Amino acid sequence: MELGVGGSIPPCCTKKMVKEKKLKPELASGFTDRKGSELILKDRLIEIIKRNFQLYGFEPLETPGFEISENIGKFLPDEDRPVSGVFGFKDEKDWISLRYDLTAPLARYVSENFDNLSKPFKRYQVGTVWRNEKPGPGRYREFTQIDADIVGTKNALADLEVCNLFADTLNKCGLNNNDYLIKFSNRKLIEGLLEELKITKDLNKLTVIRTVDKLDRVGIKGVETLLGEGRKDKSGDFTKGAGLDQNQIKKIIDFLKIEDWEKMIGFSKNDKFIEGGTEINDFISRKISKQYSNQIKFSSSLVRGIEYYTGLIFEANLLFKVKNEKGDEIQFGSVGGGGRYDNLIKRFTGSVYPATGISIGIDRLCYAMSQKTALKNNSPVVICSPGGVLFKEEAFNNYLEILRKSNINSEPYTGESVDLGTQLKYASKRNAPAAIIVGEDEIASGTVTIKNLKLGKEKSKDLKTREEWRASKPAQITVKIENLVDEIKKII
Amino acid sequence: MELGVGGSIPPCCTKKMVKEKKLKPELASGFTDRKGSELILKDRLIEIIKRNFQLYGFEPLETPGFEISENIGKFLPDEDRPVSGVFGFKDEKDWISLRYDLTAPLARYVSENFDNLSKPFKRYQVGTVWRNEKPGPGRYREFTQIDADIVGTKNALADLEVCNLFADTLNKCGLNNNDYLIKFSNRKLIEGLLEELKITKDLNKLTVIRTVDKLDRVGIKGVETLLGEGRKDKSGDFTKGAGLDQNQIKKIIDFLKIEDWEKMIGFSKNDKFIEGGTEINDFISRKISKQYSNQIKFSSSLVRGIEYYTGLIFEANLLFKVKNEKGDEIQFGSVGGGGRYDNLIKRFTGSVYPATGISIGIDRLCYAMSQKTALKNNSPVVICSPGGVLFKEEAFNNYLEILRKSNINSEPYTGESVDLGTQLKYASKRNAPAAIIVGEDEIASGTVTIKNLKLGKEKSKDLKTREEWRASKPAQITVKIENLVDEIKKII
Repeated sequence: MELGVGGSIPPCCTKKMVKEKKLKPELASGFTDRKGSELILKDRLIEIIKRNFQLYGFEPLETPGFEISENIGKFLPDEDRPVSGVFGFKDEKDWISLRYDLTAPLARYVSENFDNLSKPFKRYQVGTVWRNEKPGPGRYREFTQIDADIVGTKNALADLEVCNLFADTLNKCGLNNNDYLIKFSNRKLIEGLLEELKITKDLNKLTVIRTVDKLDRVGIKGVETLLGEGRKDKSGDFTKGAGLDQNQIKKIIDFLKIEDWEKMIGFSKNDKFIEGGTEINDFISRKISKQYSNQIKFSSSLVRGIEYYTGLIFEANLLFKVKNEKGDEIQFGSVGGGGRYDNLIKRFTGSVYPATGISIGIDRLCYAMSQKTALKNNSPVVICSPGGVLFKEEAFNNYLEILRKSNINSEPYTGESVDLGTQLKYASKRNAPAAIIVGEDEIASGTVTIKNLKLGKEKSKDLKTREEWRASKPAQITVKIENLVDEIKKII
Repeated sequence: MELGVGGSIPPCCTKKMVKEKKLKPELASGFTDRKGSELILKDRLIEIIKRNFQLYGFEPLETPGFEISENIGKFLPDEDRPVSGVFGFKDEKDWISLRYDLTAPLARYVSENFDNLSKPFKRYQVGTVWRNEKPGPGRYREFTQIDADIVGTKNALADLEVCNLFADTLNKCGLNNNDYLIKFSNRKLIEGLLEELKITKDLNKLTVIRTVDKLDRVGIKGVETLLGEGRKDKSGDFTKGAGLDQNQIKKIIDFLKIEDWEKMIGFSKNDKFIEGGTEINDFISRKISKQYSNQIKFSSSLVRGIEYYTGLIFEANLLFKVKNEKGDEIQFGSVGGGGRYDNLIKRFTGSVYPATGISIGIDRLCYAMSQKTALKNNSPVVICSPGGVLFKEEAFNNYLEILRKSNINSEPYTGESVDLGTQLKYASKRNAPAAIIVGEDEIASGTVTIKNLKLGKEKSKDLKTREEWRASKPAQITVKIENLVDEIKKII
């Protein structure tokens, strides 16, 4: 509870607050709470990732949640306020928006601090991003991204570094080499191909690119139909197609069917296509670390749905089975990606300033990892005292000090009941591995009674009746205070 | 770089983006970028604090940035959209607001998940909060808070636990016992006093409380004037006073002058005052851990500026000198606080559900700590190669693997220059402790040349001319690859 630090009168302290209407506690639509072992896992993954990004020489940066709307690429529409995609607010001077990614703020930061930065400049950032979109199942309007970028170099070694970093980071998060694949391609391939096929309008190009981007979800047949007239999905909804002719569609589908980079050579004579190919060759010749050479592979179908990519593009996909919330196995897909965006900083500086980077969708990664990793039980050992006698004693602090000095999560029961049963019920609800009971007898004899709640739970699985369970007396021992830590360590 | 994960078409990808107007890179007003060693320190402090909160049996929780406006206590004003205090946003269904603290969202969470939570419920949360206020120097509209709360118990042991936790956490962050003081009091004291003085209107009470809250900044004389007619500050600005009469002012000033709790007994016969006194006695009799008994002290002038406190209140103040951005020593004041708020959850459930907690203003704590702690240089060792010859070799990856396996932050120079001088200039700009130079000679002989950039910097301080510096040849050695890690470790 703190409102004084950094701010002044909070809005809840106005007279209007006094209204006595009962409120309905609900999350805002498209947002979620995270907690418990899933959150512990997320924190642990973030720590691992940050540490690894530092190991690769990236500096930390924390830009604010808000940017001047214009600077992150959302121009004011004709209407009174910005509407779609971002959360925008009219400020005294400017419209400001919550960032929708960490790349646009990086472009602003680099341009603003250009003279003081090393060339190239390498930074990582962990941050929340927001999208003002219609929420759907499992589709949130707020999530966490972790980005690493190298700004100010065309050198393919920079692309290689971020790919190696991506692979190494996934390994350090606990994935095996066969758990994931980092696909790479070059945006110039598809762009060159579209040029060759005379698909030149920005909007049409983007439609085709986004259609190809759906390959994993709709399959090659699906892409074929969507490039043509359109497609009815299982639910009966019709999606209008890109309206290409048969020749155009055939060439694109042929392109998508080529799996090896070697077989792609000569596929198109378009200049842009050839330029993309040269860049891919340069990237490959840079000697991907042997450790990851099987995890970083060319994929013709990788196009990335974002307009600002200009060269090499990457995407990390998980290969192991993941279950959705209903328990069905799903194609999980991407946990992040990235690529070259050589023109984004130009919007500020006026001249090309090349950049490359990756972004990890940590919420998605965490969701998948939570099905692979044993989640940690962080629950504390709970000190209980019948009649609350212990908590009136000065010595009470010693018990906690002993446990906490040994790095054992622990707490006194802080509720209002002096009844041991209620206190133990609390410990059980907290999923505590053990309860420590200190009553008058224990205080007098310098002992503690330890109830192994883990064992109790396991035993109770095999016992059919409540009577049987009671008779079994889940492991309970009384030991000298000096042995408290050792006994607890045996349990947890 | 990632936009595909979790969202769809970002707003920057619309046709409007193609405008060629050059943008001015600027932070939005009231926001700041954080970076480098200060950010590393912030991250380290957050990790220490989280770990300690877990040690005390608090579960992690992450509520979203947005809440339904009504639920966090900001009711819609008569105007078209909420204006002051919070960032509000009109959604399809409701007004939603960015949270301005972590307590109001906790009240929503507890009420929404009431049946599934342990009683009491203990959680910690680390999160960004936003205030839509006029920004001033060093006054940001976005900052990070870390809260720990115990919900669902009136037991003073809960208050004691959060105070012990507060003290222990500050110690673990690196403060000594004499670096800080946690003041406590009870909101019922000042409220009872105001009742006795017939100051009964909500707004008047709040004005007096906020005036007393300014004691540290304006001194006892300042408070005295502000309780009366008002006060002109150094800049000549006049602040209107609370307009109390001489008797009222005298009683309040007398109250503020009492420093020891023992001397406060009998100061007022008001029922509420006496009730607050009883609660303070209960708290004290709970035996504050001896470790912190000198760090947790009664203070009559502690009132906390927030309306929703109902009982015991706490505030942590730093006692060591801190310099502001201009280099002047300042009274730094609070790095956090908290207290009991027994009515906040009632707004949802209809019945009283008591709660107590603390909040740490980590940005402020970090600012103060950065003046006390040696900041860590996290800069990587940079591998340079004249002509870029090394980076064409397959074996190039080995150098990095060796260093990174030994947990040494390191990177290849990823810029475009093949000139060694430019590469070394980059290493120096990055504040690298060392540069590793691998050219054709080194490759042929299986060696590396290590340039100690730290030593170079130190030496250059004592040398007056550029010539002297050049002649001194900052430490540079050539060693076998097998000795690379050992030699680097000697430097960093």
